[in-house]
Amino acid sequence: MIKAGIVGGTGYTGVELLRLLARHPDVELAAITSRGDAGSAVADMFPSLRGAVGLNFSDPKEAPLGDCDVVFFATPNGIAMQQAGELLKAGVRVIDLAADFRIKDIALWEKWYGMTHASPELVAEAVYGLPEVNREAIRKARLVANPGCYPTATQLGFLPLVEAGCVDLGRLIADAKSGVSGAGRKAEIGILFSEASDNFKAYGVPGHRHLPEIRQGLAQFAGKAASEIGLTFVPHLTPMIRGIHSTLYARITHEEDFQALFERRFANEPFVDVLPPKSHPDTRSVRAANTCRIALHRPQGGDTLVVLSVIDNLVKGAAGQAVQNMNLMFGLDECSGLLQVPVLP
Amino acid sequence: MIKAGIVGGTGYTGVELLRLLARHPDVELAAITSRGDAGSAVADMFPSLRGAVGLNFSDPKEAPLGDCDVVFFATPNGIAMQQAGELLKAGVRVIDLAADFRIKDIALWEKWYGMTHASPELVAEAVYGLPEVNREAIRKARLVANPGCYPTATQLGFLPLVEAGCVDLGRLIADAKSGVSGAGRKAEIGILFSEASDNFKAYGVPGHRHLPEIRQGLAQFAGKAASEIGLTFVPHLTPMIRGIHSTLYARITHEEDFQALFERRFANEPFVDVLPPKSHPDTRSVRAANTCRIALHRPQGGDTLVVLSVIDNLVKGAAGQAVQNMNLMFGLDECSGLLQVPVLP
Amino acid sequence: MIKAGIVGGTGYTGVELLRLLARHPDVELAAITSRGDAGSAVADMFPSLRGAVGLNFSDPKEAPLGDCDVVFFATPNGIAMQQAGELLKAGVRVIDLAADFRIKDIALWEKWYGMTHASPELVAEAVYGLPEVNREAIRKARLVANPGCYPTATQLGFLPLVEAGCVDLGRLIADAKSGVSGAGRKAEIGILFSEASDNFKAYGVPGHRHLPEIRQGLAQFAGKAASEIGLTFVPHLTPMIRGIHSTLYARITHEEDFQALFERRFANEPFVDVLPPKSHPDTRSVRAANTCRIALHRPQGGDTLVVLSVIDNLVKGAAGQAVQNMNLMFGLDECSGLLQVPVLP
Amino acid sequence: MIKAGIVGGTGYTGVELLRLLARHPDVELAAITSRGDAGSAVADMFPSLRGAVGLNFSDPKEAPLGDCDVVFFATPNGIAMQQAGELLKAGVRVIDLAADFRIKDIALWEKWYGMTHASPELVAEAVYGLPEVNREAIRKARLVANPGCYPTATQLGFLPLVEAGCVDLGRLIADAKSGVSGAGRKAEIGILFSEASDNFKAYGVPGHRHLPEIRQGLAQFAGKAASEIGLTFVPHLTPMIRGIHSTLYARITHEEDFQALFERRFANEPFVDVLPPKSHPDTRSVRAANTCRIALHRPQGGDTLVVLSVIDNLVKGAAGQAVQNMNLMFGLDECSGLLQVPVLP
Repeated sequence: MIKAGIVGGTGYTGVELLRLLARHPDVELAAITSRGDAGSAVADMFPSLRGAVGLNFSDPKEAPLGDCDVVFFATPNGIAMQQAGELLKAGVRVIDLAADFRIKDIALWEKWYGMTHASPELVAEAVYGLPEVNREAIRKARLVANPGCYPTATQLGFLPLVEAGCVDLGRLIADAKSGVSGAGRKAEIGILFSEASDNFKAYGVPGHRHLPEIRQGLAQFAGKAASEIGLTFVPHLTPMIRGIHSTLYARITHEEDFQALFERRFANEPFVDVLPPKSHPDTRSVRAANTCRIALHRPQGGDTLVVLSVIDNLVKGAAGQAVQNMNLMFGLDECSGLLQVPVLP
Repeated sequence: MIKAGIVGGTGYTGVELLRLLARHPDVELAAITSRGDAGSAVADMFPSLRGAVGLNFSDPKEAPLGDCDVVFFATPNGIAMQQAGELLKAGVRVIDLAADFRIKDIALWEKWYGMTHASPELVAEAVYGLPEVNREAIRKARLVANPGCYPTATQLGFLPLVEAGCVDLGRLIADAKSGVSGAGRKAEIGILFSEASDNFKAYGVPGHRHLPEIRQGLAQFAGKAASEIGLTFVPHLTPMIRGIHSTLYARITHEEDFQALFERRFANEPFVDVLPPKSHPDTRSVRAANTCRIALHRPQGGDTLVVLSVIDNLVKGAAGQAVQNMNLMFGLDECSGLLQVPVLP
Repeated sequence: MIKAGIVGGTGYTGVELLRLLARHPDVELAAITSRGDAGSAVADMFPSLRGAVGLNFSDPKEAPLGDCDVVFFATPNGIAMQQAGELLKAGVRVIDLAADFRIKDIALWEKWYGMTHASPELVAEAVYGLPEVNREAIRKARLVANPGCYPTATQLGFLPLVEAGCVDLGRLIADAKSGVSGAGRKAEIGILFSEASDNFKAYGVPGHRHLPEIRQGLAQFAGKAASEIGLTFVPHLTPMIRGIHSTLYARITHEEDFQALFERRFANEPFVDVLPPKSHPDTRSVRAANTCRIALHRPQGGDTLVVLSVIDNLVKGAAGQAVQNMNLMFGLDECSGLLQVPVLP
Repeated sequence: MIKAGIVGGTGYTGVELLRLLARHPDVELAAITSRGDAGSAVADMFPSLRGAVGLNFSDPKEAPLGDCDVVFFATPNGIAMQQAGELLKAGVRVIDLAADFRIKDIALWEKWYGMTHASPELVAEAVYGLPEVNREAIRKARLVANPGCYPTATQLGFLPLVEAGCVDLGRLIADAKSGVSGAGRKAEIGILFSEASDNFKAYGVPGHRHLPEIRQGLAQFAGKAASEIGLTFVPHLTPMIRGIHSTLYARITHEEDFQALFERRFANEPFVDVLPPKSHPDTRSVRAANTCRIALHRPQGGDTLVVLSVIDNLVKGAAGQAVQNMNLMFGLDECSGLLQVPVLP
């Protein structure tokens, strides 16, 4: 049994990790930390976990994290970069669900995240945890940077096209829509029920932190510099709890059988499902599951491809992908603990 | 492996049965019938099942239901009563998720359901599938009448009080609220998104079919005639997909430590969770799980008890309870295939 | 033109007052205060008011409230009791949408609201602003205590029965459901979209502040002491923005033609609509309008009456009723500015 | 007073027309037809109209439509083209809220709508009712083709750019999101609450009927042939009742002060509101009102413009715009009956 610890277990990615790990056949939950709630039962905060998780929150300073095999950081940005180093030295593997180790260009990261990076040397070591691209590196990694939710849906949707070099990389568009849980479990007016319900809006159009992350990924797929990727990324807030729908637009530069290209690229991927032609995936078709479903369109036979890519932001976009990465890092079946059927309706 | 068939797999209880059975370690899905959709893949109608259910819908007349060990009827009322007899003769056990075998008084059933009963003799044999009350009988049953969703939440909430004889049976009130999936997957104006969303209403106040079912159960618990049970039952439609919240009111006639009474009664029940005093269970704390959570209040120390009882109408209120019954009927671990952690948020 | 001021214009009752007053033919908006947002345009915070409200928020200390004819307090509890006296001295009439002047029994108020009352003498003067009961007193009032949302729906639903003395006052039950806007525009975890959506729960069952307010009203209708009113009040949070649905239960002690009783009682009330027998009002049928719709049931002809009463908590339950009270206080047509047709769907 | 009739008053555009016309100071409702519901009170079907609309539905054949000054068709496509001619002959002006007269190219219309057009000569006469473009023609029109909801939001968002000739017309993208009421009040599985709630999906990506309508409009603005407009249009279904959010992408070909361009173009438009730079309009900011709010972005100073355009699909996207057109046709104040403040929250 792998002993797992979670730092910051009171947010939505934390409780989702708990949901998945509580039933993972190869994992034993060893510690969950929360500064504010130390001593209280996890299941008191999240009654859905009554009977499934018996742990109490422990104080970050006293939690036996050094005895764990793996520690997940489900913390705000800027925490893992301060604590990961010590854990790694103690032989603990680390998976950060925040953004601390996602961007290789330290200056770029510091610009978008507005802080000085506390451990740039770990950024160099960290592996970006998108198994469909970096599977072998993840298997050997000590430190994994779990991708963001928008970046997961968007990069997977663009991946075959960019790898195959058949679209104009200078003019990509990602019009993405997220459920409100993507904004986290924070007491903020803008994500109150009475604000976000029965309402739809774009946000962060001038610039969103997931933009450089997506651009870095696309550049890697293309084998080019990030500066060669022209990407317009517009996120929107949708009145649903879970789910991301990325609608991607790309201009074709080389003809291909695009449906076949996608099917081929993801043929052996356990968590990417390419739908038949003319499909429209809905976000609920992946609700509470670690699946990305993708459909491809070429409206009116023109030169613009439209890719529709959906995930559950808390699973394939966060906690589920983190467990998938853990499975790889410890040589387990990649699907272990991740075969939940989506909840529909 | 138990071979299971489903008659009527295109409604919400059908797809929920599929979700649960697809991952049940002891079950093999053998057939799913649908008159209108025979030949098409189940996963085409419900893309959430892609990769989990490979079956096609088959025509009810041609489906190998007689070769199954158990057949679930996830059909409208009035179907199972016509087909169950033949299956039972063939040695197949039957679990009806509709109402055909729930009410022992045939005349009463015919009045509320507006049809002539096709097999009254089977009604006598059928066991009402509420394991917390009828566990031993279910183990031996050939035919189980799976309880309705409101009746499950309401009967479990009243059960300890009625068994213990400490409340006025002549003046019970059940104010129940259901998510919209309880109305089924039917093309009806009243349950359109634009009608049911951002809206709340009572319905069926003059009389709802679950009233006689609940009354029959309470009478059994009390060891009295149904006519001695005075129950006012008011169902409401709530703008959520899943969930039932029954708010129950009873006048105390005998003093008791009511919290202890509830905890004792359900101490060994794997799927009933009595919350600590002063709790308010929310429906999402059981979302997609087979759990009933119950809390007890006595406002201002008066003589009125308030019981709050929540379930997921599609799981403990339908498909999950049906699987629980199947587990009992076949001598499996009662929890087999039913240990999903609720999905929150 | 009546010059109106609003203290505390950044909550939901504040913005709803603005929506109504901006188009009121007899009112000129003179000042809206907000400590935190002084100087910024109201329409910057609430873009729905662009083009309709040109005012800036002003600092409470500098706002020309003394020059107003009427000042509305759309503040948290405990503010109006400190400021109303001075305004009244200046000849300004005051309508408090919070709870400061609703409860006549000062000790009772202090117990439920957890503070010392700053101006008990004004409590004695204040008129409880339920026009269907206190219309003539409101016309002459300098200070009106605008009723709470639950109390409005619940008192109007019980009113004819209690006045007529035909139900058991010792065992009334009000099972009430509120949209989330009733909890206000506050940054709290529990009312986040991801917490309150697709979810239903009771809250405050041990005791809610609206209980003594409702009890005081019912006692007044009955001409009895509050201690003679036995009321169980259970509020629930419903995943919708606006709307209250009160489901009321009462045991009949004297027979009556109850439908006729209700129709007669409200025959001349412009904002109470008694529906035909067997109706089920939905909350959206009053969305954004100042109407209370009521239906009456007597299930199975028993001795329990069920009253269904719906309002929009922000209109008839708050801002709309405040405007109705203002109309009465200033001798305007009671319906002035309040004839919006409900928004459906 | 203008006598107005409505053909097909049982859908969402019908009930919205009733909401607006019931309080329009210059209009008298003369007749509302419905084949299936003739004889029953309009307010029985839509209790929100109790007290506001006293009419019964009348049979289309017997309704005194010929005595009206104006008749609105709130019918499915294909009805108005059969009945408008006779009404026009009788001197009645006609506003069609369906699509019968929107597309000037008859063959194109027949291809997209799958029927033979019954009165092509009226198509030539009909004026496309987008007042911001065709105001003078609308004033003189006998027959107005009220624009579709997506086309209204999308055309208004592109209008200044296309008129000014500063973007690449060959590669425009409209990623549009609609509330579910846009699908109408029809008993269809796909728009049930339990299907559409907590869910998001694209639909009609291979081709949607609003595509040729939008393209025709853009071509007119540009003074070009429709074939010169390259438009990718992707509609999505969003879990909210009302609202359209069009996110528009265009490549800049000529530099301009785009913010100033938009402000100038709409300076005198009573129902188009250009927001300050860096704004993100939300759909609720126009809920239940006849306003289109638009914001403009140029992310990272690149060559792609992003326009965000929101309307209420039932108001500016249907019934409200129809009333605006009626006001113009009859020489009334263009804003008459349309000054409702949006309902927020």
